[in-house]
Amino acid sequence: MTNLNHNFDQALDFELRDGRLFGKTHPAYANMIGPFGGITAAAMLKACIVHPDAQGEPITLTVNFAAAVQNGEFELIATPTRTGRSTQHWFVQMVQNDAVVTTATAVFATRRETWQATDLPFPQLAADAEPFNRDMMPPWAQNYTFRMPGEMRDLIGKEQPNAETLHTIQDNPPRPIDFPSLTAMADVFPPRILIRRAKFAPMGTVAFTIYFHADAAALTAHGDSELIGHARANRYYNRYFDQSAELWTPAGELMATTTQIVYFKE
Amino acid sequence: MTNLNHNFDQALDFELRDGRLFGKTHPAYANMIGPFGGITAAAMLKACIVHPDAQGEPITLTVNFAAAVQNGEFELIATPTRTGRSTQHWFVQMVQNDAVVTTATAVFATRRETWQATDLPFPQLAADAEPFNRDMMPPWAQNYTFRMPGEMRDLIGKEQPNAETLHTIQDNPPRPIDFPSLTAMADVFPPRILIRRAKFAPMGTVAFTIYFHADAAALTAHGDSELIGHARANRYYNRYFDQSAELWTPAGELMATTTQIVYFKE
Repeated sequence: MTNLNHNFDQALDFELRDGRLFGKTHPAYANMIGPFGGITAAAMLKACIVHPDAQGEPITLTVNFAAAVQNGEFELIATPTRTGRSTQHWFVQMVQNDAVVTTATAVFATRRETWQATDLPFPQLAADAEPFNRDMMPPWAQNYTFRMPGEMRDLIGKEQPNAETLHTIQDNPPRPIDFPSLTAMADVFPPRILIRRAKFAPMGTVAFTIYFHADAAALTAHGDSELIGHARANRYYNRYFDQSAELWTPAGELMATTTQIVYFKE
Repeated sequence: MTNLNHNFDQALDFELRDGRLFGKTHPAYANMIGPFGGITAAAMLKACIVHPDAQGEPITLTVNFAAAVQNGEFELIATPTRTGRSTQHWFVQMVQNDAVVTTATAVFATRRETWQATDLPFPQLAADAEPFNRDMMPPWAQNYTFRMPGEMRDLIGKEQPNAETLHTIQDNPPRPIDFPSLTAMADVFPPRILIRRAKFAPMGTVAFTIYFHADAAALTAHGDSELIGHARANRYYNRYFDQSAELWTPAGELMATTTQIVYFKE
């Protein structure tokens, strides 16, 4: 499956040395400071997936960005905290220079066919969605294609009454989706306060959660097609705000829901 | 502050023995099997709050329900994974019989006054909301008062096109709100599949996340008044579904947002 021609696979190309798992930050996924949070989240999940004791498929992942990840090598320590008959719980640490920089918890489980329904309405993407010019965005964004409706493109850089956005997301170049890449795509939505206030200030995600609504079969069926991402914020209060988003297939299948709480300075 | 006449304070009345923190399940917070998840989540948070190294106020908590909590004693092991200048990250384990039954991560931080806004619209509770008869509900629910609109009371026990609910939540008897009790209140929303399909089947929360939008001053200002809880589900798919909810003051202040992913059998 792994094709090291793609930046995403290079960024998650870990090395096992003396039974310990090491990775290193990839310049193509650099953010303004340190790496893109989505690639760090994907690394935390992949540390569980490649663990010899892993059972089942990812159901949820929560990542805590405890400190700035420095460019360079990191160690990933994934520990199954409890393995049951059909679920497995994980605690993961990313370590640099003997200090924890990122922690995560994850749940894996065996899926079985059940009754299904989607209560959330499928949002309608405007027909005039066109690729967004990413020249002003950090390196990591160059690994994605975002098609945005004209109305949304016109609003960029202007203060807005809320922070709702709706646009497509696809790996650039296209790459068959998997759990780590879906995880990274759930963190491509810029901090909502940037959309809302249209001004730069110190800000950064503190904690990120994703719920997977797709199993391996659904990911395979989706292949390398684009997803539709719908995001908004809830409340901005005394240094922290939360935002939520959904990732849909163009056919209206909800693949993942995600939330995060973000630090902001002013 | 602690008044051991209230069940909630009794349930979180921990004991420090040889530097280790122990608690025990309280019959008043029993669920169908084991304790109410909300009281377990509150215990995980309180283990951080009472830790001698704790700094700042809770910003977020994620709880992973790894195995059924047995009635009786449990140990709480709270570890600060990284302490920065203004944020502190935690990993918490609840242990019974030498096995991990619950894990959690939390972030604490120092709040500072900033620009504020709430993008999410405040939902309007119908004027005819009246206390809901909790006789059919498990023991834990007797510790809360829920005022529900007539239209919602009429729908209970009937299959529905979605799982949205809107009702008040208040400790019974009233108790000044704090971070642990706000956490527990974020888990009072019954599994959405029960509302949606109106039939019982095995189900249980696997992971729960809360984002706090209130600081200590906001909680003190709120006192023991009721909150308004708004909940719904997103997608039910092959054994797991997610639900989200918000907790508002009657004046329209958003106190917390919460999500959870829930196991279901059929």
